[in-house]
Amino acid sequence: MGTRLLHRTIRKNYFLRHPLPKPTQKQCMLHRTFPKPISNLSCEALVYRRHGAFSDVLHLEEVPLFYNGREDIYIRMLAAPVNPADINMLHGNYGITPCFPAIGGNEGVGEVIKVGCNVNSVKPGDWVIPTDSGFGTWTTHAVCQAHQVTSIPNNISLISAATVSVNPCTAYRMLMDFVTLNPGDTVIQNGANSTVGQAVIQICSSMGINTINVIRDRPNVNALIEKLRSLGATYVITEETLQKQEMADIFKVVERPKLALNCVGGRSAGDLFTHLMDGSTMVTYGGMSRKPTPVPAKAVIFRNIKLYGFWMTQWKKDNLHDVAKIKGMLSDLIEMVRKGHLLEPACTQIPFKEYETAFHDSLNPCGSKNILIME
Amino acid sequence: MGTRLLHRTIRKNYFLRHPLPKPTQKQCMLHRTFPKPISNLSCEALVYRRHGAFSDVLHLEEVPLFYNGREDIYIRMLAAPVNPADINMLHGNYGITPCFPAIGGNEGVGEVIKVGCNVNSVKPGDWVIPTDSGFGTWTTHAVCQAHQVTSIPNNISLISAATVSVNPCTAYRMLMDFVTLNPGDTVIQNGANSTVGQAVIQICSSMGINTINVIRDRPNVNALIEKLRSLGATYVITEETLQKQEMADIFKVVERPKLALNCVGGRSAGDLFTHLMDGSTMVTYGGMSRKPTPVPAKAVIFRNIKLYGFWMTQWKKDNLHDVAKIKGMLSDLIEMVRKGHLLEPACTQIPFKEYETAFHDSLNPCGSKNILIME
Repeated sequence: MGTRLLHRTIRKNYFLRHPLPKPTQKQCMLHRTFPKPISNLSCEALVYRRHGAFSDVLHLEEVPLFYNGREDIYIRMLAAPVNPADINMLHGNYGITPCFPAIGGNEGVGEVIKVGCNVNSVKPGDWVIPTDSGFGTWTTHAVCQAHQVTSIPNNISLISAATVSVNPCTAYRMLMDFVTLNPGDTVIQNGANSTVGQAVIQICSSMGINTINVIRDRPNVNALIEKLRSLGATYVITEETLQKQEMADIFKVVERPKLALNCVGGRSAGDLFTHLMDGSTMVTYGGMSRKPTPVPAKAVIFRNIKLYGFWMTQWKKDNLHDVAKIKGMLSDLIEMVRKGHLLEPACTQIPFKEYETAFHDSLNPCGSKNILIME
Repeated sequence: MGTRLLHRTIRKNYFLRHPLPKPTQKQCMLHRTFPKPISNLSCEALVYRRHGAFSDVLHLEEVPLFYNGREDIYIRMLAAPVNPADINMLHGNYGITPCFPAIGGNEGVGEVIKVGCNVNSVKPGDWVIPTDSGFGTWTTHAVCQAHQVTSIPNNISLISAATVSVNPCTAYRMLMDFVTLNPGDTVIQNGANSTVGQAVIQICSSMGINTINVIRDRPNVNALIEKLRSLGATYVITEETLQKQEMADIFKVVERPKLALNCVGGRSAGDLFTHLMDGSTMVTYGGMSRKPTPVPAKAVIFRNIKLYGFWMTQWKKDNLHDVAKIKGMLSDLIEMVRKGHLLEPACTQIPFKEYETAFHDSLNPCGSKNILIME
């Protein structure tokens, strides 16, 4: 890679790390005021220059980093997961598009190595996670500015720290931001075995909220039911059960749900409406079945059910400068982790240089999560 | 009809005119404190004792009325439309169910004949319309209490007065309560030739709001397009056009819609999502296609489109005692009527005793509205 191309890589990644005016914006704003480098470093990063399958477009490259010693923070990345959204972003099938060339990965944890003289929000040795999406976490090192990372305590496991900022945060916000949930209330969700789904079960359990967890039928269904129950699920049922008399029995014991979380769409989502409380809310955060959710007119008109979407990436953009809100959320979640109420996800740790093996099955949300370990 | 049965009719209709605790409540609360009658009157009313087709269940009967001379208002009904919702209610296919025997009809206008000594909200000669649904307007006369009717000016046409409280109010609330619309903004709606749709066109036109009006293709489509344009429609298109390049041309001229109004469901509603502004709102108030609205995950997640239902009956229940809000809405609408910005709906006036002819085609929202004239 020639120097000219390397400079271009860096400049574009610099912009990638700044919020774009619109999430679907396809063109870069070329800031001409890129700071003059005063210290040259480099990293190894997984770079892509066009959309496509990871095996075609993603390559490990040496990339220069410029640390100015004033506003910059120099970070050693420790661990970064491969999330389904990262893969969708590689494919160009996601709500935000990076400017090319781009470093992949949106989530992870790093350790601060050194900070510029004007930085007082973090110090060397701190653990930090990206504040916004599009950070480019699949790298050994990074240079960024103070608002681009948030420090977290380093007394939780590396895996918990590397995976707290997307899925548990998604679960947390969906439970906090749409309806007021009190102990004894009920939440229903499909795709309950997804990483978000498992976080929903654990957060609800710690708050005394009942969960009805819908999963697809499968050969080992009883083992999965046991696993989700052990996380604190009140009920675990298959999609077929939604149409059966057993539902009436459930509602003799717990209230009807005032919140439905939908990451599947199609019939799996449509079948939830029958069971919701009048005036309840459905929040859609995924569409695993790739089918639209069929919404009956009567459910919204006569039963006043409301439908919203939730996208953590957008929430981060909207709340980028609300440090107290971000810190509050992370503090709550990390406290749950510390108390053992929010377990680290089942995952396979893969050395960074063996990254190719990390991308298999990454689009299967029920599969084991793969985490790149940089050290 | 024996006296015992007549008394039962009245008692039940008395409760019908009081708000039920829940719109779907199937059982009556039997208030034993029904006031002792001190003046006996009677009316002729269209009574039904069970759900079914109008020809099977609806009969013109003489029904006694009890006027106590204190809190009661004695009304002569002047005109009452036959709305699709009334027919759905006859069929038992609506969000509220009357207690039987019941008098049909939810909308209409009456003239106050006399008022009890404790009534000061209306006076003899005033025109009044029902405040809530379930009044039972298909009758020559009625006795009710002050909060059950709202007075309106009698310097608009009888037809406008008899039809202002359901469809124009539905259009008005959907335009006011979900997004803030400013001149130059755009609203898109399907079923644009429905009575609500025509009110939406006229209210938007008077506010400087663009409307994109979707109708089904039909043999006389150009005549209908002309008719809706003459009401103030900015664009009138067929459902097929939603998938064509012409839409891009429209959005070179007007903004993308921040509000979609849906009374059809099915593909007609699903095809609207492509054209909505990010962050916009779809309000569903009908399901004429009897098919659910297919909601794409990407529309709600990445484009933050929100979905609500609207039901005028529920709004009335929720705002029954907010006299200022109800009066304000009616005052705005009647001012539009007076200025010629909101025309009376095309309708066929049918003498009350010939009621049977009024029920044909009443479920066809694109057909002419039938209005019973009591005098």
